[in-house]
Amino acid sequence: MTKIARPDFDATLASLSQTLVDYFLGMGFPADAVEMYRKCLLVNTQGGKLHRCWTVLDTAQALKGDALAAEQTRDLMILGWLVEIQNAGYLIWDDIMDGSETRRGKPCWYRREEIGLMSINDGCLLTSTVFIVLKLCFKDHPAYHDLVEVFRETALQIELGQSYDLLTASSHYGGLSQFTREKYEFIIARKTAYYTSYTPMSLPLVYLQLATPMNLKEVYKVALSLGQYYQVRNDYLDVYGDPEQTGKAGTDIQENKLTWVILEALDRCDNNQRLTLEEFYGSQDDQEVAKVLAIFDELNLRDAFKQWSDDKIASTRDMIEKIDESEGLSKDIFNVFLAKLDGDAMRKVGVTAN
Amino acid sequence: MTKIARPDFDATLASLSQTLVDYFLGMGFPADAVEMYRKCLLVNTQGGKLHRCWTVLDTAQALKGDALAAEQTRDLMILGWLVEIQNAGYLIWDDIMDGSETRRGKPCWYRREEIGLMSINDGCLLTSTVFIVLKLCFKDHPAYHDLVEVFRETALQIELGQSYDLLTASSHYGGLSQFTREKYEFIIARKTAYYTSYTPMSLPLVYLQLATPMNLKEVYKVALSLGQYYQVRNDYLDVYGDPEQTGKAGTDIQENKLTWVILEALDRCDNNQRLTLEEFYGSQDDQEVAKVLAIFDELNLRDAFKQWSDDKIASTRDMIEKIDESEGLSKDIFNVFLAKLDGDAMRKVGVTAN
Repeated sequence: MTKIARPDFDATLASLSQTLVDYFLGMGFPADAVEMYRKCLLVNTQGGKLHRCWTVLDTAQALKGDALAAEQTRDLMILGWLVEIQNAGYLIWDDIMDGSETRRGKPCWYRREEIGLMSINDGCLLTSTVFIVLKLCFKDHPAYHDLVEVFRETALQIELGQSYDLLTASSHYGGLSQFTREKYEFIIARKTAYYTSYTPMSLPLVYLQLATPMNLKEVYKVALSLGQYYQVRNDYLDVYGDPEQTGKAGTDIQENKLTWVILEALDRCDNNQRLTLEEFYGSQDDQEVAKVLAIFDELNLRDAFKQWSDDKIASTRDMIEKIDESEGLSKDIFNVFLAKLDGDAMRKVGVTAN
Repeated sequence: MTKIARPDFDATLASLSQTLVDYFLGMGFPADAVEMYRKCLLVNTQGGKLHRCWTVLDTAQALKGDALAAEQTRDLMILGWLVEIQNAGYLIWDDIMDGSETRRGKPCWYRREEIGLMSINDGCLLTSTVFIVLKLCFKDHPAYHDLVEVFRETALQIELGQSYDLLTASSHYGGLSQFTREKYEFIIARKTAYYTSYTPMSLPLVYLQLATPMNLKEVYKVALSLGQYYQVRNDYLDVYGDPEQTGKAGTDIQENKLTWVILEALDRCDNNQRLTLEEFYGSQDDQEVAKVLAIFDELNLRDAFKQWSDDKIASTRDMIEKIDESEGLSKDIFNVFLAKLDGDAMRKVGVTAN
């Protein structure tokens, strides 16, 4: 098995970026515009932990081991980058719609003075880049059309999740009384679980032609559970995380978001606390936000998260244990996730670190 | 040949919209979000002249005449709507990036108080809709993947045009000294000619399996010429058109846009006039914009447009006359365009009406 390290991923992106520059220049796109595109591509995909890149490769290596050829490894690193690139496009839009300030510790792309709302079109170019690269690099692969379909379906799932995420947070929506766990589950299945876990795990199955309906269904089940874990954790860290570590300042309260934290608070609060939450959740005022935070503290949401998190890790472990491997799937593909979950459990997800 | 009228297109959209509503409900998208989607789809695609819908159908009818089956006619009307829907997605984004106020005589979608920047995701959903419908309605068509490819390439072309359009208009770009006809040609080939003319003319060729490389090349040549005509006319009407008739207030001067009008002015102005243009082109101040307009008038740009327009119509006519029909193409597919051009020539494109 080819041993891959972070610099290999960096080299793959550099090479991909050159391929794209050549492609655009070749079709007559002016050099100054191509340079802008290159910058947009690199700035918006770098600086992260490449979680999705690694998932694509780790999954393939768990499935094939030493049988994975060097060329396949290279292809899989490219597919990993395509998940990152597609995601980068949606994050640009997401940050504009959420009015976010920072992403990965730097000002959001749209906040750059020379970019501004031009970034909306940059989001388009990044999401289109996925299909350009698929055509350039995978046109002759027997699963080419299925690979295209994975990315198209991923795009749609993100958009549906985003749509409901924005709608429920809208001041026209009806406030906290309209927040339900069912709606929350819909949003996170689309907005997080799909592209964060299912896409990078199903891509290698499709690429290696192991994507039987049953295998995809098994992977989806675990991916959904992992996605739920990561989104709830994300919601928790938005309120209780350290911006130094998360790379962004939390804004869920100010944005009136339907999150695990507010659902949990609504389940636990008494009538007085509920009145306060209804009055101030969604406020832009720091003092009013502080009142919301005070109620969260009164309700022991840190402990609630700890408990939820332990339970979720246990049930996901169980689920993985029961995976049906009869059609070529291997539960080993979840090992890396399990190791991360165990790491989270040991660190108590920053609960004690706070 | 089935005789099609405007109500047939309206009925096709109504049916398409119901198909999409059922599709989204079927995949678990909550009813309130589906209703928002339906509204977004209908509001953003209606109220126009359906120029692209008609082009798809007219082209097919010119190619096949009575041999066009009722089912094919229905399919082609759907393809026409898909061009309109894809375009509607890009217009939503375009209006945000341009800071536009109105579209088709109504406030732009993003200007609605209950929508705002959520409209960025609505643009995503509309452009994704194209691929959902292709899969729902054309999955078994022998040219399915080619139809997908037409829309994907169209998306990319629009984005490249938009990208350079925004970059050249940016205050960081270097101003009027950087404006060239070559850059302008690049932008309008992508931003206008491709999706306005080439896409709706090449789709029926692909659908009817007449899309030989030569036929596509011949159509592209004419489509480019027609697209140039329409974009220059559009630039002209942005300055000299009647907002009552165009449905939108011109903002090209305020937005520092690289247009036919400013290029023509730069070609014709003396040094003093140029200094004024350089100082005030791109200003948001009404009095400063008026100074730019005054120079445009001094330079007789109305007459210049009349001359340019007559020449362009004549050269496009010539081009059409010389179309190679040996691989099943028919120059009749351009008849409707020619009739419109003649109509424009007679009305002198609003030059005398002003």
